[in-house]
Amino acid sequence: MDSQPNLRLFTGWVLIAQVLGLTSVILVAVWMGSYRGGFAWQEDPGREFNYHPLFMIIGLVFLYGDAILVYRVFRNERKMYVKILHGVVQAFALLFAAVGLKAVFDSHNLAEKPIPNMYSLHSWLGLTTVILFGLQWVFGFVSFLWPKVALSMRTIYKPIHVYFGLAIFVMAIATSLMGITEKAFFSVGSPSYKGVPYSALPAEGVIINILGMVLVALGLVVGYIITNPDYERQPTPEEEHIPLDQ
Amino acid sequence: MDSQPNLRLFTGWVLIAQVLGLTSVILVAVWMGSYRGGFAWQEDPGREFNYHPLFMIIGLVFLYGDAILVYRVFRNERKMYVKILHGVVQAFALLFAAVGLKAVFDSHNLAEKPIPNMYSLHSWLGLTTVILFGLQWVFGFVSFLWPKVALSMRTIYKPIHVYFGLAIFVMAIATSLMGITEKAFFSVGSPSYKGVPYSALPAEGVIINILGMVLVALGLVVGYIITNPDYERQPTPEEEHIPLDQ
Repeated sequence: MDSQPNLRLFTGWVLIAQVLGLTSVILVAVWMGSYRGGFAWQEDPGREFNYHPLFMIIGLVFLYGDAILVYRVFRNERKMYVKILHGVVQAFALLFAAVGLKAVFDSHNLAEKPIPNMYSLHSWLGLTTVILFGLQWVFGFVSFLWPKVALSMRTIYKPIHVYFGLAIFVMAIATSLMGITEKAFFSVGSPSYKGVPYSALPAEGVIINILGMVLVALGLVVGYIITNPDYERQPTPEEEHIPLDQ
Repeated sequence: MDSQPNLRLFTGWVLIAQVLGLTSVILVAVWMGSYRGGFAWQEDPGREFNYHPLFMIIGLVFLYGDAILVYRVFRNERKMYVKILHGVVQAFALLFAAVGLKAVFDSHNLAEKPIPNMYSLHSWLGLTTVILFGLQWVFGFVSFLWPKVALSMRTIYKPIHVYFGLAIFVMAIATSLMGITEKAFFSVGSPSYKGVPYSALPAEGVIINILGMVLVALGLVVGYIITNPDYERQPTPEEEHIPLDQ
């Protein structure tokens, strides 16, 4: 073939995405674990909250990002195996998100003085994102793994699935940035950190801001890998003769 | 040509983008104008702040979005005219952003009790976004309008310019969502609105949340129009013979 794609730097970008994804998980765990009192379940709603940012970022940012990348990373494996891997990783992402949502609703409802739910822009966009993610999973499963729908429908749906796949990922990152902002203004400077407010940028504030910038960088890198036509998965020679395996 | 692009719905999507963009400008103007005391310049730093969200959204969301779309909308005009239009609209976007930044720094520095600058994640991502936008403008100008660089360099730079064009637009929207979140928690419930807090979702809170969701919807629609290969601008017959006019 004369149209051999240019895979220069591909591995480097994927590694950078892994480093950024893991760094975001570590930073949010350190923030919640070391500055916000650590983790607990329903016996302590204030600390149950701390599972919310951790689980949302593990699920809807780190795992979601990697699930998007599997088609590029496992470019020489059988397409069906890669699809199954994609679906399984996304199922785990949804599971983490569900537990993360449970944690925040519990922390509001079980607090001594209950906090209203679903009033902030963060909550509106966040719930929209999770619902779209769930729909995307169901439509993807029905269309590409358990194909009861006609090939013509799948061909129409595929670019929609791909577009929303990246769009919902970006929405998850944007929602995280708003959640981080809320939590920073609510909590930094509250007694557990010697009363230094966010505006004086104590260590906790710096960690928070770096976490946010790392999430943005991750979005940029995953977006770049996915939209670079050189990095797109090429059909293997067998696949070219099996249109149903698209 | 047998590969005539499918322009069905194109006009509809562009109209929806205009409606969403204008709605976001109207909503932020109503929020600042009717609920946050209206606008003033340096004689009243608290109300000078109100220019900040208004000008940033006019510049880095509404004008920026439309500047991105000009290549699709004016698909039959001479490429050079469209490039000039793109560069001029982006210059206005940058101008609005500059005044919007001046407004927020003034409102911090001229306040009776000055407020620290550049401590929040919103400010870190926001300044990064404006700097990248400015660099993108300069590189774009030098590469495509005042072409002192070789065609080979321009061919390498073009996909980078296109990718960052959409990425910086999304960063501007994400930064807006964080700024909206900050302002909502700071101000809703403060005396000017009868003390009903954001968590009780008064009219102001609903306007704020709708503004945020409209910005996200605008990002989704512009992203969709730009990434849909059917909507891409095709070179006119003359252009196909003038590679320098790419």
